[in-house]
Formats: sequence, C-alpha cells, structure tokens
Amino acid sequence: MANGARSPRERGYIGVGLLGMGVVGTGVAEALTAQADFVQESVGFPVNLRGILVRDAAKKRSAIVDRSLITTNLSSILEDPAVDIVIELMGGEDAALAAIRTSLSTGRSVVTGNKEVMAKHGAELFTLAHSADAALRFEAAVGGAIPVISALQRGLTGARIHALRAIINGTTNYILSQMASEGVAFEEALSNAQAHGYAEADPGNDINGIDAAYKLAVLASLAYGSSVSPESIHCEGIANLAARDFRYARELGYAIKLLAVAKERDDGAIDARVHPAFMDSQALLAKVDGVYNAVQFDSESAGELLLYGRGAGAGPTTSAVLSDLVDVARGMIGENRANLRAAPQPARRVHPMEELDFRYYVRMTVADRPGVLAAIARVLGDGLISIASVIQQEVDETAGSAEIVIMTHRAREAAVRGALRTLTELDVVKEIGSAIRVEE
Amino acid sequence: MANGARSPRERGYIGVGLLGMGVVGTGVAEALTAQADFVQESVGFPVNLRGILVRDAAKKRSAIVDRSLITTNLSSILEDPAVDIVIELMGGEDAALAAIRTSLSTGRSVVTGNKEVMAKHGAELFTLAHSADAALRFEAAVGGAIPVISALQRGLTGARIHALRAIINGTTNYILSQMASEGVAFEEALSNAQAHGYAEADPGNDINGIDAAYKLAVLASLAYGSSVSPESIHCEGIANLAARDFRYARELGYAIKLLAVAKERDDGAIDARVHPAFMDSQALLAKVDGVYNAVQFDSESAGELLLYGRGAGAGPTTSAVLSDLVDVARGMIGENRANLRAAPQPARRVHPMEELDFRYYVRMTVADRPGVLAAIARVLGDGLISIASVIQQEVDETAGSAEIVIMTHRAREAAVRGALRTLTELDVVKEIGSAIRVEE
Repeated sequence: MANGARSPRERGYIGVGLLGMGVVGTGVAEALTAQADFVQESVGFPVNLRGILVRDAAKKRSAIVDRSLITTNLSSILEDPAVDIVIELMGGEDAALAAIRTSLSTGRSVVTGNKEVMAKHGAELFTLAHSADAALRFEAAVGGAIPVISALQRGLTGARIHALRAIINGTTNYILSQMASEGVAFEEALSNAQAHGYAEADPGNDINGIDAAYKLAVLASLAYGSSVSPESIHCEGIANLAARDFRYARELGYAIKLLAVAKERDDGAIDARVHPAFMDSQALLAKVDGVYNAVQFDSESAGELLLYGRGAGAGPTTSAVLSDLVDVARGMIGENRANLRAAPQPARRVHPMEELDFRYYVRMTVADRPGVLAAIARVLGDGLISIASVIQQEVDETAGSAEIVIMTHRAREAAVRGALRTLTELDVVKEIGSAIRVEE
Repeated sequence: MANGARSPRERGYIGVGLLGMGVVGTGVAEALTAQADFVQESVGFPVNLRGILVRDAAKKRSAIVDRSLITTNLSSILEDPAVDIVIELMGGEDAALAAIRTSLSTGRSVVTGNKEVMAKHGAELFTLAHSADAALRFEAAVGGAIPVISALQRGLTGARIHALRAIINGTTNYILSQMASEGVAFEEALSNAQAHGYAEADPGNDINGIDAAYKLAVLASLAYGSSVSPESIHCEGIANLAARDFRYARELGYAIKLLAVAKERDDGAIDARVHPAFMDSQALLAKVDGVYNAVQFDSESAGELLLYGRGAGAGPTTSAVLSDLVDVARGMIGENRANLRAAPQPARRVHPMEELDFRYYVRMTVADRPGVLAAIARVLGDGLISIASVIQQEVDETAGSAEIVIMTHRAREAAVRGALRTLTELDVVKEIGSAIRVEE
C-alpha cells in the first residue's frame, strides 16, 4: 500500500489507478465497472477503480465507464493515497517507465502489459519492486491470455528448462499462415492482415521481429534467471520471405514460422534469437496457425510442454491484466500465501447428467430382416430423439445379424437412456454395442 | 513456520519433510540432494531435506539419497521444529489426509500430489491452511508438469471460464490412441500399455474414469470457485469401447477420447462429467495422443487456451512437486509478493549468433548453364558447409536463369554468412532469394 495511507482492510477496498485507455485499457475499465462483482468474488474483497489517465480528455469513451474517473493529470492518480495498484497500459517506453518507477517507489504495486519496458528495464524494476515490497506483474506483456509468465514464475520453477521455442507475434504468424495456405506474396498477406485488423497500419516492429524480441527477452530472463537484454537477441524479420519458399518448404516437409528461441547450452551460456525458421511440419509449433501464439518448453524432467492460445487482441490481453490484478489484490488481503483461492463461494449446483443434452453415437447389432430400422426409429421417435444419420454395415450372414450405427441430433440424456433400455427389449435388437456422446 | 520454532531466516535454511519414497518421492529426494544448488538458486535461500518417511526401512533405496534421513516414524518429521514444508507423496486417502491435517494445523505448509485427498477434502484443507496461514499446493495432482493448477490459481483468475475440457488420464489416452491407430481391441491395448509401463498392474481407477474424476473435481473446484465433489461427477470408463467404434468414428470424422468436462451453464449450475466422447477429429484435443495430457479452457474474454504436456511419470510429477516447493519456499523468505523471481543471478552470456550451428535452406537464382552447381558447391565446401540436398527448378528460359534450393547439413553460422557473401559475388549467382535456418 502507499506510504502513510490506510491499508485496504482499513479502507474497505483495494484502490486501482489505470494509466491509458486504448483498446485494452478500455476493456479493463469496463470490466472493473460492469464486472465488479466477478472481480470482487475472485479477489474476495472489493476492488475500486479510482482514476483513469488519458491523453485526450475530449475523446469519446466507452459509455460503461464513469466519466468522472477520467483525467489527464497523472499525479492525481499516482498521489492518490487510496490507489494501491497501478495498471500501466500507456505503451511506449519513457513515460510508461517513469510512471512505473514512481508507482513502485511509493510502494504501489504495478500491473503492466508493456513488453518494451519489461524487456529493457525489467531488472531495474524488479529490484525496485523488491525493495519497496510491491508486486510487479506483466502477464499481458507476452502471449495475451496464455498464462506463460505465471508458468515461468510459479508452475515451472522446479523444472530446468533446456529450451523454449515460441510463436509470440500474432501478426507475423497470421501473415506466414496466409502465405503458406494461400500461396500469396508477403505484401498481399500483409494487406490482408491489415484488412482483418491483425496488423497495425505501421506494422514495423511486428514484421521486423522487434516485438517478438522484446517478448523473448522477458521470457528468457525468467526462464534462465538472468537478465537477457533485447539488444543481445539476434533478430530477423519476415519481409524477405517469398511465396516460393513456402512451396519448397512444403515439398521438403517443413513449415516456416517466425520463431523466438532461447536455449541453454552445456557451457551455461544461452542462445536468444528471433528469425524465420524451417520446422518439421509435424512438430506441434508448426501447426500453430493464424493469430494464435504458443510457447513450448523442453525440460529434461518435465518433458515437453506447450501453452497455446490467442496471443493478442483486446479480450485476451484484458483477461491477462485482470488475472494479474486479481492475484496482486489477493496478496494484499493475505489470501495469496495461504491458498491462492478466493474466499469460499456458494456451492454451485452440479447438473444431474439426466438433464443434459447430447448428440449420441449408438452402435447396435440387430436382426438382418426388413422393418428393423423402422422399429428402432419408432422407439427413438417416441423419446423425441431424432436421427441425424444411419450406417448399416458388416452383415454377418451366418448369424443373420447386421450392425447399425446411428448418429442422433441433440437429445436429453434421460430420453436417450430410456430409449436404449427400450431398444434392448426389442426382439430385433441383439445388443447395444456402444452409446457414446459427442462433445461439441 | 511451525509454532514456536525459529524462522527459516533465523535458522539459515528452509526445512523440508518428505512423506513417501515411491517413484516420485525418490525423484524429489534425489533432486533435493543432487540438485540442491539449482533449488537454492531458484528459491534464493538454502532448502534442506530433514527427513523421509517410508513404510519399509529395509527396502533398497536410491544411492543418491542420504540414508540417515530415512525413517518409519511419522512424528519425527511432523514434530521436527525445523520442518517448514511437508511434501506428501504417500498416496491413498486416510493416512495422507491425517498427515496433511497435522502439518497444516501446526503451521507447516504442504505440497502434495494427492488428487484423491484434494478432490475429496480440498475444501476442508483450504480452510485449515487459511486459518493456519500455511500454504497448500498440489500442482502434481493434475496433469504432471503441466502448470494447470498455477494457471487456474493465478494466470487465469481474471478470465471467466465457460468450459474446460481435459484429457487428464495418460493410461486411458494411451489405450485409446492404440485402439485408434492400431485397430486393436481394448484388452490388447491395455496389455500393451502395461507392457510399456503406461498402465498399472491394477488399472481399475484409470480405466473406469475415477482417476480422471478426482482430477476434474480439483480443476472444476478451482475454475468455478465452488467445491465440486467427486461423487457429483458423472463417470464412465473406457472398457466397453470396441475396435469397431474407432473405425466408425474415423469414417464419421471423429476421434474418441476419454474427456473430463466442466461447463458453466446460463443458470449458474455446472456440468461435471467424465466419459468417452466423440470429438471432431480436427479439434485440438482430438490430436492429443499417447500418454500426453491437455487441458483446454474456453473463456469469452481470453478465447481458447490449451495447456499440453506429459501428464504423468516420475520426471514430470517430480518437476511439479519441486515447482510448488520452490514457490512456497520463496513465499517464506518474502520473495513471493514482490516479484516471484529468485534473487538476481549472475548474468548469462548470450552466444553471439555467429557461434551457433544450423542447418540452412538457401534458395538462389542462378545462370542456367553447365558448371554452376559445381561453382556453388566449391564455395560451400571451402566454408566446410556440406550439402544435404539440392532441388533445381523453375527454369526461366527467356532470362536464361534457373532456381536452386540447397539444404545444408549443420554448419557454423559465421561460415554460412561468409559463404553467402562469396556466392553473391559469383558471376553465375544472380540473387540469393532466401536463407532460412532449420529449427530442430
């Protein structure tokens, strides 16, 4: 909490200051407004948005967010004694860095999505956070909602990571996927990505690999407990790839991906590099297409691990910011160490299976004579179960039996069970071999 | 820390008691012995193994582990004032539950891999941990080294999870993968799994879905902030599936998986069920084969997320236990809240790119005349770069040019760059179109 201020417990809520109201900032502000109950339930304590810093106060903003919170005055947020947590979503380097420094040095915890600041100044900010006993979180800086930072900071701390390979730039992965599947040239794939909102008007830092290098610096620093600067990362972009390269790659059994790679070598030194790479087309990462991101870890003890998801966009990034916020807030009210779980919530009713609806696959052995399917269809119809398709196969002439496979439309579990019981009682049904639900 | 005992800081180390020395317990004991440096580096503080509970003191044990630590006396561990953290790997329900209760109620933190205890008694133990201000961690209980518990407790706390679908039993997934790919019957696939060590001699709780139901109870309880008991989970096993079902499934465009599913419905109630299911064969989960596990989350804001890895086995499970241990230990020395990062470690050297070895794909436009390939091969040979394969294609007769694609064997980056520079100076080489590394 901020120096000299009342604690969240005394005050009755955790106060949040939000810096920046772009797409993600708006998503966070809306969530802290419209989903305040969900956040409070997750934290186990009220969380109040105290102020939102914007550059242009006159700009039209989300109707959900309380306009009186919006300010162009950074100090009004950073000096508010009721602000315990600052969420930095300004982007860019200098102003964001200054705001994070001020926040941490006044004992406020910080949640940021700023990969550039974390890549370049992470070591300094960690030290600052540590000496101020404040939290510094940045799940949103890499891989959108993919919980890769929390994996490296917590779930995988006991694994010695030999290599991490990542697809961590959605724009370039979309472009490469387009070039591979459509056979188009780089320029056309880029325009296409821009038309779909998957590339910025100025996509420079995506295309040339800088964005991926920032993210790799963050991941490699955590994975190897060492400060890996973005300048030390070899970085090549994708602008020189030709449509022909994708054809040759396919012929040779490869996919082309913009990979961010960090590996530990036997001498204790590491590789850290971002460049287009041929990958065996059967490798998991080679199958990560479009705007999806994935991070793969190789560890002698833990084996191969892959985390996969939407690496960018308002929703996933907002979700990552909120997850950090919830976690930091839990720590402030003492929930964190004990069990990392919010206050017990009311028990949820678990639906009895009978009330659920499924499509069903049913395989049965029946007598091989006319009218059998009609008899079966009648039983299903009586249960209001409609048939989507039927396969009749593998007639066993000696036994006079046939096999029927039925795919149903969605039907109530209780009705299906009843119909199956009735079917087993039919003379013409010798056996119900399998009845398997379709998961959709 | 235990009541009345000195704190880890005063004592100079964090003390660990280990209950159980089966495969995973042995892995943990070995890691805390042979990799003590790695653990200390990860925690930022010494971690000492104080005692190991076994059932049979006479049994031959790992030569790495200090025999003097081994005891059959539970009290000697649970009453040791220098034991801050108890690692429970006894398995089973009653004795393990009693040991966890005693540990937590005396203020000791607990790391466990016991899915049965967590599924049946999680709510009670969370409350106990909370009131004792002790940590309770169980990453190893679900999905081996896949950091799914830490994702649910931390990285995804801001995401409202609509559905989770999981393949969380390696034995059954191996059997189903065998039935699908080899066309064998259940019994044969089971024997095969047993022969490869992927199924226990008594595989009952795997085959009938109970193991998956315990794990689902743990996951669903965390995802929905509600205590989902294993008894409330509908549970069907895989023993009734026939080889024919896999053939029909393939014909119809499906894979068959033993799925654990928890979904939130509009009425606030949830589904929780384990049963074989048809899944669209193009779905990500449908492609998770063999002993691998995966957990997929659907969230409106975060989109689709998948965590994938080895779900069982000594290495991955040991890794999960160590990760929990490191995290809990960090919390004890105050590292946790600030930055979830160990004390700064010496900076690692980052290899200059020139020192690394890669296979290379090189595409170039050359003059279409005799001797060209020989000239190129000479340049590569001078750089000690050997050629793995050559494709010559797309002759442009008007321009008198041809295209050559070369895959090299592994070669030093500096040598490849030098050779490419020399090649561009050859009269016969019109352009080096692309030079792309192969990531292996």
